Amino acid sequence: MVGRHGPRAPHQTRLTMNHKPVISVDAMGGDNAPGIVIEGLALTARHAADTRFLLHGDEAQLTPLIGRFPVLSGRAEIRHTDKSVTMDAKPSQALRASRGSSMWNALESVRSGESHAAVSAGNTGALMAISKIVLRTFAGIHRPAIAATWPTATGKAVVLDMGANVEAGARQLVEFAIMGEAFARAVHGKPRPVVGLLNIGSEELKGRDEIREAARLIRESGVDIAFGGFVEGNDIFSGKFDVVATDGFTGNVALKTAEGTAKLISGALKEALSASLRTKFGALLAMPALKSLRDKLDPRTGNGGVFLGLSGVVVKSHGGTDGLGFSTAVRLAIDMSRSDFSQEIARNLARLPGEHITAMPAEAADVLS
Amino acid sequence: MVGRHGPRAPHQTRLTMNHKPVISVDAMGGDNAPGIVIEGLALTARHAADTRFLLHGDEAQLTPLIGRFPVLSGRAEIRHTDKSVTMDAKPSQALRASRGSSMWNALESVRSGESHAAVSAGNTGALMAISKIVLRTFAGIHRPAIAATWPTATGKAVVLDMGANVEAGARQLVEFAIMGEAFARAVHGKPRPVVGLLNIGSEELKGRDEIREAARLIRESGVDIAFGGFVEGNDIFSGKFDVVATDGFTGNVALKTAEGTAKLISGALKEALSASLRTKFGALLAMPALKSLRDKLDPRTGNGGVFLGLSGVVVKSHGGTDGLGFSTAVRLAIDMSRSDFSQEIARNLARLPGEHITAMPAEAADVLS
Repeated sequence: MVGRHGPRAPHQTRLTMNHKPVISVDAMGGDNAPGIVIEGLALTARHAADTRFLLHGDEAQLTPLIGRFPVLSGRAEIRHTDKSVTMDAKPSQALRASRGSSMWNALESVRSGESHAAVSAGNTGALMAISKIVLRTFAGIHRPAIAATWPTATGKAVVLDMGANVEAGARQLVEFAIMGEAFARAVHGKPRPVVGLLNIGSEELKGRDEIREAARLIRESGVDIAFGGFVEGNDIFSGKFDVVATDGFTGNVALKTAEGTAKLISGALKEALSASLRTKFGALLAMPALKSLRDKLDPRTGNGGVFLGLSGVVVKSHGGTDGLGFSTAVRLAIDMSRSDFSQEIARNLARLPGEHITAMPAEAADVLS
Repeated sequence: MVGRHGPRAPHQTRLTMNHKPVISVDAMGGDNAPGIVIEGLALTARHAADTRFLLHGDEAQLTPLIGRFPVLSGRAEIRHTDKSVTMDAKPSQALRASRGSSMWNALESVRSGESHAAVSAGNTGALMAISKIVLRTFAGIHRPAIAATWPTATGKAVVLDMGANVEAGARQLVEFAIMGEAFARAVHGKPRPVVGLLNIGSEELKGRDEIREAARLIRESGVDIAFGGFVEGNDIFSGKFDVVATDGFTGNVALKTAEGTAKLISGALKEALSASLRTKFGALLAMPALKSLRDKLDPRTGNGGVFLGLSGVVVKSHGGTDGLGFSTAVRLAIDMSRSDFSQEIARNLARLPGEHITAMPAEAADVLS
């Protein structure tokens, strides 16, 4: 149905972007799977009439769930397996036991060219480890990164890495910048995304060596991106930058700090508004506005963490998400499968000086580290 | 007036905590100095009747400003200098030209024992570099850290380092934990503060080596602190931890990301509430509640970044702060000067295994790095 490719072939969306998307789903991954997975597919199916789904998981559980949603009729095909990767498995354990699981099979289906993208709400570490084994790393990329879409004052920005790499050298940061830029162009539809490197800008410190070196590399290598220099934490949200590149440790801390801040504020807001009858009445009148605010800041609407740097599209949905959140991840997978971002990445990678690596071998030591 | 100490003596607050505080102020430091400095002192003076101030700066500018506030009469003594450190000076430049400046003299006044603490809203990097030269590092501490007080759902937490050290090894992280714990005990009044190390807790990654090693050191060294393990970014605000230790790069990114998130939300809230007449009316009724929320989250009320690990108390106020913000920093300096936190630190440092360092020599290479 879709062309078949070897693991080192460039991203197959190039070959199929004019075809109807086929999305492979790990139906058993996530805290509330498979219920929210099927709900999410049903929500997506209403807005993506040309998309089909391959559901990897337990047929006995999936069949009645799918039956509840007529919109999925004839568009969701079950690929039975009774194996699945548990949410608390360590990547190394998961990897050994994962062959033939719903997660593995969803990824294998992308590798074989049967589907255009895989979506899972399962164990992040396992998904990344298995993705590297099954799909391999995109030619020229050292290690894949997890990218997330953040809301900004003027729209949205892509921030990466969100946790796949606890450290990142200068070359890796440049790769993240290039991948993020291609994503912002292809998925967020920004014609000329402004790219920044997350750093600390206080006058006493110019930040870390590898970040300064990455900036130099971008400026001197002839990579064709609009480089805006260093971004400070507060500027992630300002709208001045469309892409923010950082290591996975810092990115993960920043993401969770932002979540914690939002939670603190919304808790304080609720408390403040219920302080008196007067404020309660005021809150009631203001409710539509507060609700629209909540929707804008709802983490579920930005709920797809996409794995960039693999030879295939993999979208990770939040493990604890609901049907709406999962549908956001699936929509992202569809957008990605229609885009030509791999070509953008390949074009810029070719401009980087020095080493020319091909896809990395699937070394267990690397994946398990 | 206050006992005189050499630079390697333990923090002098122990000797003077029952005395009336004398606070040394860099009256020329900050974007809006000296105006906001004098305003801040006046605000503080109303609530700290026993405190005196030594103002380092330009007498011709300071005299008329002080004259506006009767509460400062007889309590603010000017120490004239016409030199000051500019806000945009690099630490290395600042250091060379800073001897005799208002910043230098404020710190020298602490070193000589004439005052109990110094406050400056000036150039952070210069203040840290000069502090290390003038006051030296506290015995047993490798490098000082900047600590900040963050609001949480249940009160407040101290987070450090906020930017003095772009990297931190395991031993340094443990020192930060010990200093933060002593601060939470002495200044926040928490009898048994729970200490955490900032890390990423996603299942695939246990975080960075030095953080795991620091956790092991704390658990095995017999350091007497309540260690709560790893903190994720969102848990900084939960109230589960009273102290969060991290390197200065990550701490600075987290702080600025939190600021950016709060700004994004408040902007969206304003916009949402002015969307229609109805929401405007609602907002009007809810205003007192929203105002109390804003006050709680006002960065100015947490506006003192204290330098921990020096042989003397130094509080850094935000460069762009106003009088209210500066007064918060001064109140923090007064609290610190009354506390006995140095003894807490010394006691725990003695329990750490291995090296026993004394105060570091004031090497220019170190300070200028």
